[in-house]
Amino acid sequence: MSEEREKVELEEDELLSAISHHKLDEFRNIFLEQHPYDQAKFFIKLDQEERLILYQFLSPEEMAAVFENIEDEDDQYETYLSEMDPTFAAQMLAQMYADDAVDVLNELDKDQVASYLTIMDDEAAEEIRELLHYEEYTAGSIMTTEYIAIHANQTLNSAMQILKNEAPNAETIYYVFVIDEDKKLVGVISLRDLIINEPDAMVSDIMNERVYSVSVGEDQEEVARKMKDYNFLALPVIDFRGHLLGIITVDDIVDVIDEEASDDYSKLAAVSDVDSQDRGPLSAAKKRLPWLIILLFLGMFTASLIGRFEDTLNQVAILAVFIPLIAGMAGNTGTQALAVAVRRISVGDHEEQSLSKMLLREAGTGLITGTICGIVVTLVVFVWKGDIFLGMLVGISILATLTVATIAGAFIPLIMHRLKVDPAVASGPFITTINDIISILIYFGMATLFMQYLL
Amino acid sequence: MSEEREKVELEEDELLSAISHHKLDEFRNIFLEQHPYDQAKFFIKLDQEERLILYQFLSPEEMAAVFENIEDEDDQYETYLSEMDPTFAAQMLAQMYADDAVDVLNELDKDQVASYLTIMDDEAAEEIRELLHYEEYTAGSIMTTEYIAIHANQTLNSAMQILKNEAPNAETIYYVFVIDEDKKLVGVISLRDLIINEPDAMVSDIMNERVYSVSVGEDQEEVARKMKDYNFLALPVIDFRGHLLGIITVDDIVDVIDEEASDDYSKLAAVSDVDSQDRGPLSAAKKRLPWLIILLFLGMFTASLIGRFEDTLNQVAILAVFIPLIAGMAGNTGTQALAVAVRRISVGDHEEQSLSKMLLREAGTGLITGTICGIVVTLVVFVWKGDIFLGMLVGISILATLTVATIAGAFIPLIMHRLKVDPAVASGPFITTINDIISILIYFGMATLFMQYLL
Repeated sequence: MSEEREKVELEEDELLSAISHHKLDEFRNIFLEQHPYDQAKFFIKLDQEERLILYQFLSPEEMAAVFENIEDEDDQYETYLSEMDPTFAAQMLAQMYADDAVDVLNELDKDQVASYLTIMDDEAAEEIRELLHYEEYTAGSIMTTEYIAIHANQTLNSAMQILKNEAPNAETIYYVFVIDEDKKLVGVISLRDLIINEPDAMVSDIMNERVYSVSVGEDQEEVARKMKDYNFLALPVIDFRGHLLGIITVDDIVDVIDEEASDDYSKLAAVSDVDSQDRGPLSAAKKRLPWLIILLFLGMFTASLIGRFEDTLNQVAILAVFIPLIAGMAGNTGTQALAVAVRRISVGDHEEQSLSKMLLREAGTGLITGTICGIVVTLVVFVWKGDIFLGMLVGISILATLTVATIAGAFIPLIMHRLKVDPAVASGPFITTINDIISILIYFGMATLFMQYLL
Repeated sequence: MSEEREKVELEEDELLSAISHHKLDEFRNIFLEQHPYDQAKFFIKLDQEERLILYQFLSPEEMAAVFENIEDEDDQYETYLSEMDPTFAAQMLAQMYADDAVDVLNELDKDQVASYLTIMDDEAAEEIRELLHYEEYTAGSIMTTEYIAIHANQTLNSAMQILKNEAPNAETIYYVFVIDEDKKLVGVISLRDLIINEPDAMVSDIMNERVYSVSVGEDQEEVARKMKDYNFLALPVIDFRGHLLGIITVDDIVDVIDEEASDDYSKLAAVSDVDSQDRGPLSAAKKRLPWLIILLFLGMFTASLIGRFEDTLNQVAILAVFIPLIAGMAGNTGTQALAVAVRRISVGDHEEQSLSKMLLREAGTGLITGTICGIVVTLVVFVWKGDIFLGMLVGISILATLTVATIAGAFIPLIMHRLKVDPAVASGPFITTINDIISILIYFGMATLFMQYLL
C-alpha cells in the first residue's frame, strides 16, 4: 500500500471527529487536500447524521467532485440526494461533469429528474437533457458534452487561448477537436501538437484530418475496443451526418472494460452479477437462485431421461458408476468451447471468420480431445473392471460426447450472437446441463444397443 | 464501423500493389498517413516476401511505430527481427518506447538480446537494460523511463520549456513529475495546471505534493486498480526509498485490465488461455487437453466412489437416475460461489473482511438456496415417482450438497489466495469435479443409511 493511501487512512479519524465536533475549518483543511476518490470512499462510510453535517461543510461544487467518484453504489444516489436541500442538490448536479450527472439522474424517477432540472441553471440543465435520452450502453450514454472545439482557420496561439479559457470546465484538454462552420468534425489536434509547434502556425496545417470517431449509437464495448487498440485518451462522438456531439474519455472506458469483463465472467458462472460488495447471504441467494432453479429443472429433465433407461440400469447397475464421469467431461469441454467462443465474439473476431469455419475448428478440437480421453478411459476401465466391452462402451461414449459437447459449447453462443442475444448468457452451468443431457443419451443409448456384450 | 476504418481497408489493396510493384513513394504516401495501429494490422497480414520489401521502404523510426502496435503476436517478434538487417532491427528497437522494446526483447533468448543491445546506441541500450531485469507482471515490467521530471524551485515558464524540448521523446507530457536533488519524487503537476496558471508562478506553489505512486515491485493488477479508481493518466513508479524510477501510462493499464480479466475468465472455464486468435484444432486441443486429462482422472475417482456403492445401486437402481441432478447442482452452486470469491479477491475486497466472515456468508447463502431447491426437488420427485422417501432422500441430499458445495466453492479459492496461489486457477470444472465427489458421498451415504425405507 502506498504512503499516500496510508496517510489518507490516518486522516479518516481526524475527519470523523471534526464532523462530530462541527469543526468546519479543521475538516475542510484535511478533506479538500484529498483526492476525490478518497473523499468519496470516506463519504460512503458515513451514516446519515454525519452526511447531513458534511453537506453543510462543503459547497455544491466540492460535493460534486465527491459524487463523481462514488462507485457501484447506484442504489444509494437517491438516498443521498433526498437528504440534501433540493437547491444544493441541483447546484451539485449542475457542477458535475454532465455524463456523471446523467449516471446519477438515471437512478431517479422521471418526476425527481424533472424537478432537479427545473431548479438548475438552464445551461447545465440543457447539457444534461441532451445526454439523458441516449440509450444505456451506447456511446451516447457515456459521452460528455464538455469538450473543447476550435476552427481550422485560426492560429495555434488563438487556439491555445480558447483552451486556457475552457480548461476549467472541459473534461479533457489533451485533445482539441476541430469543427467546420456547421459543427461537422473535420480534425483533431493534441495539446502536445499545440505546444511543440510554432504559435503562429495555422490549426489547419497541424491538425490530423484522419480523426477516428464513434457514432452516438455505437455499443460501448465497441468504443472500448477502439480506444484500447488505438491508445486514444479521448474519442469524438458524431451523429450520422458527422456532427460532433460529444467526447468519450479514457477514464470512462477503463470502467467500461472492467464492467464488461466482470459481466462476461459472472454469466460464465451463472451469477446475475458477481459484485465485489459484501452483501448478506439473503441478497446473495436472491442473485443465484433464479439460475439454480432453471438448472434444477433442466437437471430433473436429465433425471427423467435416465429414468427411461431404468431397465438397462436394473440389468447392469455398474453403468451408473460412469454417469458423473461422462456427464462431467461433457460439461468441462462444453465450458471450454463456450469460453473461447464468447471471448472471440466479444473481441469482434467473429466478423472475420465464418460460423461454419469456427464450428469445423471446434469439431476438430473435440475429435482430438475426445479420441485421446476415450482411449485413456477405455484402458483405465479395462484395467480396473477387467471388462473390455465396458471399457470400450465408456471410451466411445467419451469420444462421442466430447465431440458433440465441444461443438455445442461453441455453437450455442454463436447462434445467440446471430440472434442478437448476448452470448455470455449461455452460462457455463447452462451449457454443462445441456451437455449432461446429450451425454446421457449417447451413453445409455449405446449401452442399451450393445447390452448383450455387457451381460 | 467508422468511416476512417473503411478508408483504411480501401487503402489496403493500394498498399499491397505498391509493395508488389516496388513503388516506394506511393506506398509511403498512403502508409505514413495511417494510424500506427492500422499500420501494424496491415503489417501482420503480409507474407515474408512482402515484409522484406516493407523493411526497405521504412526507416527504423517509422518501423518502430508499427512494432509498438503489434498485439498478441509475441511468438512472431523473433521471426520479424530475424528477417531484418541486424543494424536496422537494433535501431528500430532503440527508437521504440523502452517498455515496448522490452516486451519484444523478452521474447528472444539472452544471446540475441545481448547482440542487439551491443549494436544499439548506448543511451537507448542503457534504458532498455534498466527495464529488462524487472519481473513480469510487476509495475517495473510495464513502466517506461521516458517521463518528464522537473525541480520544484523553477517557474512554470521554465518548466514549460523543458516540457517542449522533451515532448518528442516522452511517452506522456500530460503529467510532469517533480523531483528533489537526489531524484526523490516530491510532487506532480499536470500540463493542465502548467497552462492555466501564470507563467511566472513557481512550480512548488502549483504542484500537488500528495502524489500517488506505486512501488516498482507492485503487482500490475494492483497498479491497474489504482489507475482505474483515481482516473489517472499516468502513475509514477518509485523504489523503496522514494526515488522516481519511471512512469506507467494509462494505455498500458487498459491492456493490463483486459489481460487480467480474460485470464480470470479462461481459468474459470479451464482453458489455459482463451485467445482471440484463430488457431487450428490441434493447437486448440493442446491448450485444453491438460485440463481435461486432470479432470478425467478426478472423474474416474468419482466413478470409483460410486463403485463402492454398487450393492446399494443393485438394490435400488432408481438411485442412479438422480446422480447427474445432484452432482450437477453441486457443480453449479460451487461455480457461482467460486466466481464471487475470485472476483472479490481480485478487487482486493478480501483485505477488508475476514475469511471466517466470508465463509459464514457463503454458508448462509448455501443453506438458503439448498433449502429452497431441496423442497422443490422433494415435491417434484414425490409427484413423479410417488415415493415420498425417495423424494426426501434426494431433497435432503440437495440441501446438504448445495450447502457444502457453496462453502467449498468460496473456501478453496480463498485458501489458495492465502497460500499465494492465483485463486483463479481453481477453475469452474475443477470445483465442479470436487463437488461431484462431495455430492456423491452425501447422496449414496444417505441412501445406504436409509436403505430400508427405499426398498
